[in-house]
Amino acid sequence: MDITNIPQRLEALREALRTRRIDAYIIPSSDPHMSEYPADHWRTRTWISGFTGSAGTVVVTARKAGLWTDSRYFLQAAEQLAGSGIDLYKMGLAETPSLTDFLAKELAEGATVGLDGMTYSAEETERLEAALRRKGIATRLTDDLIAPLWRDRPAIPRGPFFVLPDELSGMSVEEKLNQINNMIHQAGADGLLLTALDEIAWAFNLRGTDVAYNPVGIGYAFISEEESFLFTLPEKVSEEVAGHLRQAGVGVGAYSKIATYLSRLPEGKTILVDKRKTSAALFEAIPKHCHVATGTTPVCQLKAIKNETEIEGFRQAVVRDGVALTRFHKWLEERVGNPATPVTERSAARHLSALRAAQPRYLMDSFETICGYGAHGAIVHYAATPESDATLRPEGLLLIDSGAQYLDGTTDITRTVALGEPTEAMRRDFTRVLKGMISLAKSKFPAGTRGSQLDILARKALWDAGLNYLHGTGHGIGHCLNVHEGPQSIRMEENPTALAPGMVTSDEPGLYRANEYGIRIENMLLTRVDSETEFGQFLRFESLTLCYIDTRLVIAPMLSARERAWLNRYHARVYEALSPHLDEAERAWLKEKTVEI
Amino acid sequence: MDITNIPQRLEALREALRTRRIDAYIIPSSDPHMSEYPADHWRTRTWISGFTGSAGTVVVTARKAGLWTDSRYFLQAAEQLAGSGIDLYKMGLAETPSLTDFLAKELAEGATVGLDGMTYSAEETERLEAALRRKGIATRLTDDLIAPLWRDRPAIPRGPFFVLPDELSGMSVEEKLNQINNMIHQAGADGLLLTALDEIAWAFNLRGTDVAYNPVGIGYAFISEEESFLFTLPEKVSEEVAGHLRQAGVGVGAYSKIATYLSRLPEGKTILVDKRKTSAALFEAIPKHCHVATGTTPVCQLKAIKNETEIEGFRQAVVRDGVALTRFHKWLEERVGNPATPVTERSAARHLSALRAAQPRYLMDSFETICGYGAHGAIVHYAATPESDATLRPEGLLLIDSGAQYLDGTTDITRTVALGEPTEAMRRDFTRVLKGMISLAKSKFPAGTRGSQLDILARKALWDAGLNYLHGTGHGIGHCLNVHEGPQSIRMEENPTALAPGMVTSDEPGLYRANEYGIRIENMLLTRVDSETEFGQFLRFESLTLCYIDTRLVIAPMLSARERAWLNRYHARVYEALSPHLDEAERAWLKEKTVEI
Repeated sequence: MDITNIPQRLEALREALRTRRIDAYIIPSSDPHMSEYPADHWRTRTWISGFTGSAGTVVVTARKAGLWTDSRYFLQAAEQLAGSGIDLYKMGLAETPSLTDFLAKELAEGATVGLDGMTYSAEETERLEAALRRKGIATRLTDDLIAPLWRDRPAIPRGPFFVLPDELSGMSVEEKLNQINNMIHQAGADGLLLTALDEIAWAFNLRGTDVAYNPVGIGYAFISEEESFLFTLPEKVSEEVAGHLRQAGVGVGAYSKIATYLSRLPEGKTILVDKRKTSAALFEAIPKHCHVATGTTPVCQLKAIKNETEIEGFRQAVVRDGVALTRFHKWLEERVGNPATPVTERSAARHLSALRAAQPRYLMDSFETICGYGAHGAIVHYAATPESDATLRPEGLLLIDSGAQYLDGTTDITRTVALGEPTEAMRRDFTRVLKGMISLAKSKFPAGTRGSQLDILARKALWDAGLNYLHGTGHGIGHCLNVHEGPQSIRMEENPTALAPGMVTSDEPGLYRANEYGIRIENMLLTRVDSETEFGQFLRFESLTLCYIDTRLVIAPMLSARERAWLNRYHARVYEALSPHLDEAERAWLKEKTVEI
Repeated sequence: MDITNIPQRLEALREALRTRRIDAYIIPSSDPHMSEYPADHWRTRTWISGFTGSAGTVVVTARKAGLWTDSRYFLQAAEQLAGSGIDLYKMGLAETPSLTDFLAKELAEGATVGLDGMTYSAEETERLEAALRRKGIATRLTDDLIAPLWRDRPAIPRGPFFVLPDELSGMSVEEKLNQINNMIHQAGADGLLLTALDEIAWAFNLRGTDVAYNPVGIGYAFISEEESFLFTLPEKVSEEVAGHLRQAGVGVGAYSKIATYLSRLPEGKTILVDKRKTSAALFEAIPKHCHVATGTTPVCQLKAIKNETEIEGFRQAVVRDGVALTRFHKWLEERVGNPATPVTERSAARHLSALRAAQPRYLMDSFETICGYGAHGAIVHYAATPESDATLRPEGLLLIDSGAQYLDGTTDITRTVALGEPTEAMRRDFTRVLKGMISLAKSKFPAGTRGSQLDILARKALWDAGLNYLHGTGHGIGHCLNVHEGPQSIRMEENPTALAPGMVTSDEPGLYRANEYGIRIENMLLTRVDSETEFGQFLRFESLTLCYIDTRLVIAPMLSARERAWLNRYHARVYEALSPHLDEAERAWLKEKTVEI
């Protein structure tokens, strides 16, 4: 059977379902590690549907097929699904049934829903099972039913791991394993299963290039006092990496053997697992004679607290990043408006990447640059396509959210700049966003404070004017690792994790005027100890990011004296840190951009 | 046996324990309704120990007896326990074992701990059971073992209920029962058990005087579409109250029959219960053939949202309260420092109560006035005793936290005033506290915002200076009901309840300098709708409380222009609202106190 087009692929899958007496099959976007960016090998949902967006779930029944995706992708999905036989279900609209409601309506009681147990987290599977059970529908974990059908499927990435030396990581693997094992014992457990690729990379001081934007490699790990193993593909372990692991007492096993390893764990042991990051299939592989303790792993907690070497690395990486950003903004200003040198959203993003790539220790971008001009800036997760790619004109606002992976740190920065004379409304909005960004950055708070308590600082100037933004204010940032990491966050939603010295978190309030413009200003903040008083320990933030803020967009009288002083001090720091690395013209240009207001 | 002294009482209890083969007995401070202020009948813990503080738990084993209480009562408990044979366990100190650790150490595996199931909440009992079970100790619910020993025990209060007319409650009982039954159905339940006295009072538009400070009466209630009952003592139901209930279709049952009534509930029904407010014994009385759904009750949720009549009542009650407070502060100022007219903490509090009592619609104070002079102000829950009662001198700070129950509203207000020339440090601290109080009062926030998100507004000016207070910022306030009510709060701790229009909540930041002085400023805030924007609905607060704030303690340049404008506007409102009810001298005095700064 020829299965080159979507209807044929769906028919082949339905045939497989009939054989297995499965009435519906769910194909999500994730990989076995619940990665934010799965490698091509795991893009089964794209293969079966033709839809290439980052978020979406396909459900196939005997008679119907549907894709559930969110508002970012309504347009793209409608185009890509045309003629496929797959219906688009627009999530978030009142009339759209949830996936489980759809299944309950389409399937008879006693029906079976299948899903690949390797690409659904244990926690999500439990939730799905419970919801379907209430409707009399069974859930069955299957093998990957797409595998036998997808003939030209890309292989699992085989790129090599490389060692992040102690001079950059700041802590040897032996020391990390000591700390991890201590925490395992404190939790009353005997061993730890790691499935998240960034947690494995951190624990073993390894990095890789298997996944876009995240410098990690494919693998699993098990850590205990008795023995620790990295389960991965043999091609990925060079002599050097093997020696590095051997020295730390870490064994290497085959990627495919993790389930077998788990199934042989001795009776009565307690294993720590994060059910949100572990696939249902692997979770099932832990034998019933073991106890399971679930929650945020010790590695996730340790990784969030950067050590002095990592912090120093961040401080150096942001200088290089700031140099690239200064060159970029100068280039942009000179080009925009000159018909001889057109710049588009995509070409601007490409140039920024190139400038970063020219910096020492650059590995890759840390996420896909969001370069949104005018109304595009109001689309929170905008990614320019060849079709949407707007040419920048000397007017309106440009929002650029970008970042890079350097060997000594990860960056994430958003700036919004005026390409021409900004309107009063733009300046008012920008100043309100800036007030929020500054208020959070210069806050001081007792140890034990959670991000949800501080979140309002970034929103208050907006709330006072009846404005708001509906995304989080801040996320954790890895050290030469994922640009989005836990466990802390700064959001309206409650998160029980307290901000602690050594954590790096973003500070990124915004404002989005649909069909007009978007504004976001983002710096990275390092949590530090401020002081010890009779009322306990107080913490504060150090702003890591070094890049000018467009003062043409600032209405100075709207700032308090302290906010204005903060901005002027920040600009002085930016100039002082970056100018030694700039040529004369660049220096003069930055001087002007960072002049006191 | 004569049991007039504590050792004899303990011995009599031990005898009862031996007979029942119970190895330890726990006697908490609560009543069967988990009231903040239990009636004397239920002060078994005081009877067995001689300790009269509001918080404390006694444990008696064959050989030992102990009282666990918090730092407020360390001194008082030590004095009252002297010679009793009861050891003091100071909670919060590192060396103090928890109650369960004590039991685990003192008792052998297989031992049994008893407690009166009527005075321990179902939730707390479950927690205790689980903790003791891990140590191999069983928990047994018993009758009240103090009852047969306590010969001159006060009766259960028999004061009559009275009807709060619809003109004051704003909603008939029929309408309330309709709304409650709707919420019972929405929760998928068939009936609702009410055990908290304020919830019963609200649901049936009844008030009482059985308990200090809370205008409630003793009873239980069951509400369902089919039938609703108030279970109480017959003496408490007058002809008028009986008619009022009959008209609303509410039956009256005997207080002692609630458990029997519950045990006869038909099979398969789902009953809503708040396990935190229901005794373990009553919870057990719900038959196993019924389902139980636990959580905040519909009455707790409805009661928190004041209707227009209740809101108008609050607005009138604070005028009367403000008049009494103005007279009090004028009186205080004139007396303090005049050796001919000495004033002490207790005589000041008494005079304030008398001034309030002279106001129309006054029922009682809403809690015991905290009148803390100088260093006493730094003791957060200070209650002056005849021994501690300090004479006020023309120097230092006086903190007065007080309130009243009026038929149309409940008040709770704290003011801190300078009795002489304040120091610069006092003024700096006061101004920081005031900034926080104002910042919360004038905030604006989207619908859905929780108190824990706003809490920082009241603390920020303190945190900026490395200061803090360790109590909550705000609690819900009932309408002619408990001065502390849920479900909302404004605290550092997470509380999932969103602030909603119609809620009345306190705003009371403070600062406590041990052995020097305490500062707290408290207004009551009504949550209101502010506006509807493209970003959703926004809410704001209306400051209800009407009483001047001592501007001699304010360092004006430390206030922002908006904070100063808020204070001046607030003072203008206070003068405008109160002056028509004051005599000429009082008016002139208040004019001066509320002059613009």
